[in-house]
Amino acid sequence: MSPGDQPLTGVRIVDLSLMLPGPWATLMLAQLGASVVHVEPPGGDGLRSAMPSAYASVNRGKEVVELDLKSEEGRTRLRELLAAADVVVEGFRPGTAARLGFGPDELRAQNDRLIYCSLSGYGSSGPYAGHPGHDVNYLAVVGLLSISGEPAGPPQAGGGVPVADLAASLFATQAILAALLLRDRAGSGSTIDVPIAAAALKLLEPRLAEYDGAGAPSKGELMARAAYGTFRCRDGRWMAVGCIEDHFWRRLCTAVGRPDLVDDPRFGSYTSRCRYADEINAALGEAFLQRDRGEWVDLLLAADVPVSPVHEISEIEEDPQVRQWGLIERVGAVRAVGLPYTGLRRPGLVAL
Amino acid sequence: MSPGDQPLTGVRIVDLSLMLPGPWATLMLAQLGASVVHVEPPGGDGLRSAMPSAYASVNRGKEVVELDLKSEEGRTRLRELLAAADVVVEGFRPGTAARLGFGPDELRAQNDRLIYCSLSGYGSSGPYAGHPGHDVNYLAVVGLLSISGEPAGPPQAGGGVPVADLAASLFATQAILAALLLRDRAGSGSTIDVPIAAAALKLLEPRLAEYDGAGAPSKGELMARAAYGTFRCRDGRWMAVGCIEDHFWRRLCTAVGRPDLVDDPRFGSYTSRCRYADEINAALGEAFLQRDRGEWVDLLLAADVPVSPVHEISEIEEDPQVRQWGLIERVGAVRAVGLPYTGLRRPGLVAL
Repeated sequence: MSPGDQPLTGVRIVDLSLMLPGPWATLMLAQLGASVVHVEPPGGDGLRSAMPSAYASVNRGKEVVELDLKSEEGRTRLRELLAAADVVVEGFRPGTAARLGFGPDELRAQNDRLIYCSLSGYGSSGPYAGHPGHDVNYLAVVGLLSISGEPAGPPQAGGGVPVADLAASLFATQAILAALLLRDRAGSGSTIDVPIAAAALKLLEPRLAEYDGAGAPSKGELMARAAYGTFRCRDGRWMAVGCIEDHFWRRLCTAVGRPDLVDDPRFGSYTSRCRYADEINAALGEAFLQRDRGEWVDLLLAADVPVSPVHEISEIEEDPQVRQWGLIERVGAVRAVGLPYTGLRRPGLVAL
Repeated sequence: MSPGDQPLTGVRIVDLSLMLPGPWATLMLAQLGASVVHVEPPGGDGLRSAMPSAYASVNRGKEVVELDLKSEEGRTRLRELLAAADVVVEGFRPGTAARLGFGPDELRAQNDRLIYCSLSGYGSSGPYAGHPGHDVNYLAVVGLLSISGEPAGPPQAGGGVPVADLAASLFATQAILAALLLRDRAGSGSTIDVPIAAAALKLLEPRLAEYDGAGAPSKGELMARAAYGTFRCRDGRWMAVGCIEDHFWRRLCTAVGRPDLVDDPRFGSYTSRCRYADEINAALGEAFLQRDRGEWVDLLLAADVPVSPVHEISEIEEDPQVRQWGLIERVGAVRAVGLPYTGLRRPGLVAL
């Protein structure tokens, strides 16, 4: 082991997946030190033309090979790549890889140490196995979308980022890392199947417990949040306040000049406050309109209240904590992000 | 190695964290086979009283020990637990663990093989290290909240689940698994620091590339989606449609009886369609009101268009694909979720 080694130094990954979930997973594995070959069809991954900057970001640090898997020459070249691989990631519609001769059974019969990871919308078996889908569909099927948007409003796909896709990428890295540990002990690889929609279902787990524990509440009852959310300030800028705990609630009321709210017997616990969320948030919203955001953030932080500016995308790097992390990398003119933790991070994984 | 072994069989985790992000991370490690001791203060984790059902779900399969770390007796008992530990997870405010004598430097000086993972809102160093915060604050600071909600509306914390918290849990499992692999090769453990807000920043990565590639568009320009989102049907039920690709768009227009939209020169690509998202979604919304949801889902799936019912939380298990996965477990009367992949899953991790 050399001093510069990373957790996955020496691990060779062949990534047959396209677009976002598979390639973002193998990017993170590359950031942990793996070498990744991204196999693309003739003309390249569709993301190259659809979103060139996202393509460049998600595939940085990878070797790219264009292969026509419908030709014997392409399949031969892929077999050579696979002979040296520890991990294969693929995101074809279920059955396609096997039809091309590169399914998990074929490949693991030749090399039982291989870790074969499939990512697809609904998994490789079951009634939806062949169904097309995107992030919004996966969130819908597992119920997550039904509690999204305003508590009193309709279901709304407004989460800002494709949560199911990104979660599936993260679960794929979790499964592949666990499979590498298992292989070190057991000697054999694994055949992993990650349904993107199932990843979304797992994200729902804590909320599902809350829902079942509360006896199947309505969306409004489950999702109403008092003193928790976004508020507009006098200068038109927005801030986020997150006062769940009683001590934060009391400090907030004092800081905004509404100590009377602390004494209101209806507002004694977070659960009871959420029942009056509209009334409480309206009172807070009125108070917040009396000062500019900068004043509020300073004032509330001095009172040890959870508050943050809602930064625009253009402002992120002006934030002193974001600068402290040093996670923003450049891929040409495009910003990319390092792994969000220290202790294992591979510094400087930038564009090839 | 026994046949029933899992990837983390034999790995001992001491979890000092409370509430959601740390305990949900160690739950997933327990689901991979680790044994987890959850150390709680006298009277227990605050989540027990705040949300008993979520507490039961997130801490299932763990041994629970109540210790007063302010007493010598409690600290002695913790030292005994730590002597046998491979991994420590803690979520105190930065500096607290060290003050109690259980910081990473103290513990790793005694046992360099230890993997010490801290989870906190903003990380253990930097200007926000001591700041309180919750999910909404982390999403705000890194800019994710500024593109959430309706494309033309204000920032809105309506994602349905606490995305930053859950992502931080997933990144913690990624980092701990990678550290276990590194320890097998290098012999020594790692000191890992996961800022929850940095996890949210990493989730923003593909969108950040899209934003930079498009030359800093407004929220409305960045987030407008044509033929992608939630739509109401005649019976008042909602469905999700995700037609990004041109071939899905063409099939959709034909299926809803609007082939004229295919021929509209303004709608030739997804990017150009998104510029007219309001017009397109209004036309589709009108068409969808002509039939009940069940009819539309059948009709659109027959045309190979990405469509899904927006299931209520109460309906999830009626879905045939959700039943196929078999991921729903019971913790008493509360539903919980297995790891969302096959190939490594530990079956039957249920309530103690």
